[in-house]
Amino acid sequence: MTSIALCTIHSSARSIARLCQVSRSAHGTADFHSFVARYSTLRKCAFLLGGKWSFIRAGTRQMSQASPGRILLGRYGVFLAAGAAAVTGVLTAGVSHFQRAEMATKISKVEEEEGNIRERCKSFMSVPVTDIKVLEQRKDAMSARMEMLIMETQAAFCRALEEVDGGSFRVDRWSRKEGGGGISCVMQDGKVFEKAGVNVSVVFGNLTEEAAKQMRSRGKVLKGKDGKLPFCAMGVSSVIHPKNPHIPTVHFNYRYFEIEEGDGTKQWWFGGGTDLTPVYIDLEDAAHFHKTLKEACDKHHPKYYPDFKKWCDNYFYIRHRGETRGIGGIFFDDLDSPNQEEVFNFVKSCAKTVVPCYLPIVNKHLNDSFTPEEMDWQQVRRGRYVEFNLVYDRGVKFGLATPGSRIESILMSLPLTARWEYMHEPTKGTKEAEMLEVLRNPKEWI
Amino acid sequence: MTSIALCTIHSSARSIARLCQVSRSAHGTADFHSFVARYSTLRKCAFLLGGKWSFIRAGTRQMSQASPGRILLGRYGVFLAAGAAAVTGVLTAGVSHFQRAEMATKISKVEEEEGNIRERCKSFMSVPVTDIKVLEQRKDAMSARMEMLIMETQAAFCRALEEVDGGSFRVDRWSRKEGGGGISCVMQDGKVFEKAGVNVSVVFGNLTEEAAKQMRSRGKVLKGKDGKLPFCAMGVSSVIHPKNPHIPTVHFNYRYFEIEEGDGTKQWWFGGGTDLTPVYIDLEDAAHFHKTLKEACDKHHPKYYPDFKKWCDNYFYIRHRGETRGIGGIFFDDLDSPNQEEVFNFVKSCAKTVVPCYLPIVNKHLNDSFTPEEMDWQQVRRGRYVEFNLVYDRGVKFGLATPGSRIESILMSLPLTARWEYMHEPTKGTKEAEMLEVLRNPKEWI
Repeated sequence: MTSIALCTIHSSARSIARLCQVSRSAHGTADFHSFVARYSTLRKCAFLLGGKWSFIRAGTRQMSQASPGRILLGRYGVFLAAGAAAVTGVLTAGVSHFQRAEMATKISKVEEEEGNIRERCKSFMSVPVTDIKVLEQRKDAMSARMEMLIMETQAAFCRALEEVDGGSFRVDRWSRKEGGGGISCVMQDGKVFEKAGVNVSVVFGNLTEEAAKQMRSRGKVLKGKDGKLPFCAMGVSSVIHPKNPHIPTVHFNYRYFEIEEGDGTKQWWFGGGTDLTPVYIDLEDAAHFHKTLKEACDKHHPKYYPDFKKWCDNYFYIRHRGETRGIGGIFFDDLDSPNQEEVFNFVKSCAKTVVPCYLPIVNKHLNDSFTPEEMDWQQVRRGRYVEFNLVYDRGVKFGLATPGSRIESILMSLPLTARWEYMHEPTKGTKEAEMLEVLRNPKEWI
Repeated sequence: MTSIALCTIHSSARSIARLCQVSRSAHGTADFHSFVARYSTLRKCAFLLGGKWSFIRAGTRQMSQASPGRILLGRYGVFLAAGAAAVTGVLTAGVSHFQRAEMATKISKVEEEEGNIRERCKSFMSVPVTDIKVLEQRKDAMSARMEMLIMETQAAFCRALEEVDGGSFRVDRWSRKEGGGGISCVMQDGKVFEKAGVNVSVVFGNLTEEAAKQMRSRGKVLKGKDGKLPFCAMGVSSVIHPKNPHIPTVHFNYRYFEIEEGDGTKQWWFGGGTDLTPVYIDLEDAAHFHKTLKEACDKHHPKYYPDFKKWCDNYFYIRHRGETRGIGGIFFDDLDSPNQEEVFNFVKSCAKTVVPCYLPIVNKHLNDSFTPEEMDWQQVRRGRYVEFNLVYDRGVKFGLATPGSRIESILMSLPLTARWEYMHEPTKGTKEAEMLEVLRNPKEWI
């Protein structure tokens, strides 16, 4: 694989595109799976390394934060490290001395951060969806790097929750006959957590007509070949419903997509977010949660936190109730600029915040006492959570509508118990009314 | 009103249509309400008494079971009784001696069955949505007769449930600023019933573009005037969730629609159904329930029960689970033949079965003992009920999407409590597995 890559980089960008096609087609073809269904949104521009693109064209595409060289180094850093001398001639056409120095730093950083695949897999909740040998062969491809990241995120989060709960996650490794599979980790009726689910999916195949239509409705028309659009999608998602009403529910999801159009154009994008759904407002918790997310965002772009915070409030909105689902966090989709490496690094930063965002809040309230009335309010709020997930959540809706979806992994996000009281309205001046007020009028927390 | 009707019948069918328009336009114009949203489906043929129709044309429209005279007698029976001699000349053009004799029987039957409006209103849970004086003035219009029927059905069912439970329904009379309103009766956390809701809605206004689009997708394009489609919709709907897992959940709904197209053409149709959702299979209950419905259906058409039983199994299907919601019953929509009177009589027969369908089952299991495991299974089944209602139920989906809907009345159908267990699958050979087997393979019960 490495030699192919080197050879490709030597020849032309067009060959790089071909390489991408090779690694993609190895995934095979199949119907569109729930996972894509759950998280896909049409991207706004073509695949970075699509067949018809040159280095320069790639470089001039929304490049506010990156040079052309950095784009390629992101994806091919490891290849370049293996044969840096050989490719210097190609790469220097269009990059400065400063940029070259930066590349060198980047290469070593990627190696250092992402490390040995086989070694990293040892900490996972299960062997990855893709065969470890294949991951090793393709270790520089974004699909492999993202799969490693989501597996790592799942493991880190599950271990942290197991430590605080004392219980263990049930680990279900499942495959999808159309291509790919997933690892669902669920802890039910634990000491601290009533239901905790952390799911990884890595799926590939072809978009069905229904899925394509759904995507079209969100933006751009995707032109397939003979009506088919090969895709690859992966992500980690989690919803944690604790028992104690003073410990909030948390949700996060980080995902990556690749889609190939009929003319060979590839599109890729990342999406994700982390958001908190408390039963009662705790200003300190809210500030900690948002601050942790803002710090991760600010490392990458000063507009990320304010933009994605707003997007989160808008997305997790229960329209028929006129309430947000919780106190938000960040949410983004269709992220494809400034370049793949930068976006991946941003997603990595976000994924690494899930434990520090949530676990301090869990630990803080672990021994909080609570009343039956507080539990009732928690149950009512969970009912609203169910309403959002079944009525509005794009991913759930689409997943349920897609044949072959693993329903149990999609509906893992529903709480163990929920309640619907007719005409429930908290009395003014109560903590419940205070919570509702926030949900009706989203706030800035930092 | 009577004199207008007589005059109208004397002059022409066109004038009758004009009368209908007068009584409809008195409803005013407004946006499409959740109620229509919840139950509307496009009808397949034009309003019986639409502006351009003659007696004969009305009479020849899908008249397998009724003569032209009977159509008009149905709607204008009371007018005719008040001035039978005056209209004989018009009516005998096209009807035989036998039919005239039949008319006379019908007139007295309608009077006898539907009786004095003010007197009937005394038994209702609340004063009707429409002012009693208006109902009296329009007592022969289908909209008034149907409103009386749904109010009566609500009262009969609520009283029967109150008697068995010992508790009382909370009665909320609400109005809708765009036109009309409703009466929601809810009993929560009773002795027998965990949540029982019986709702009446009578709404009118104009179809919004969204609603019109939704209707179009179900069949025929409706052409409005300046993009507006005046409508009138009403119905009674109920969902009862008992505490004891051996008492099944029941749902019923009976509804009536009128829509006016831009060219003055009116469309009307009825819809409805009653279905049972047990937690455990009881063959005797299932047979009783279906037999009661079949008897009501058989009075009107031998194909109604088999057709509507099948429709019910198909409609209440949780596709992503591969399960029906319950053991069915009957479900129909868009019913507009053989004629308005016949369909109304069929709907009346169905509405009158709700108490005899359900109450004997409630009484039979009132003192059945149950285990915590049986309650858990009940909670899991309720989770599925929520899934159906939020994901598939056309009415709920559309109601939630329609601004100005009374959300609490729409979501009144959700159980007080529900549960989602990851990977829940009953052990083979258990009563739970037996129930699931039936839900996965709908049966004939009689």
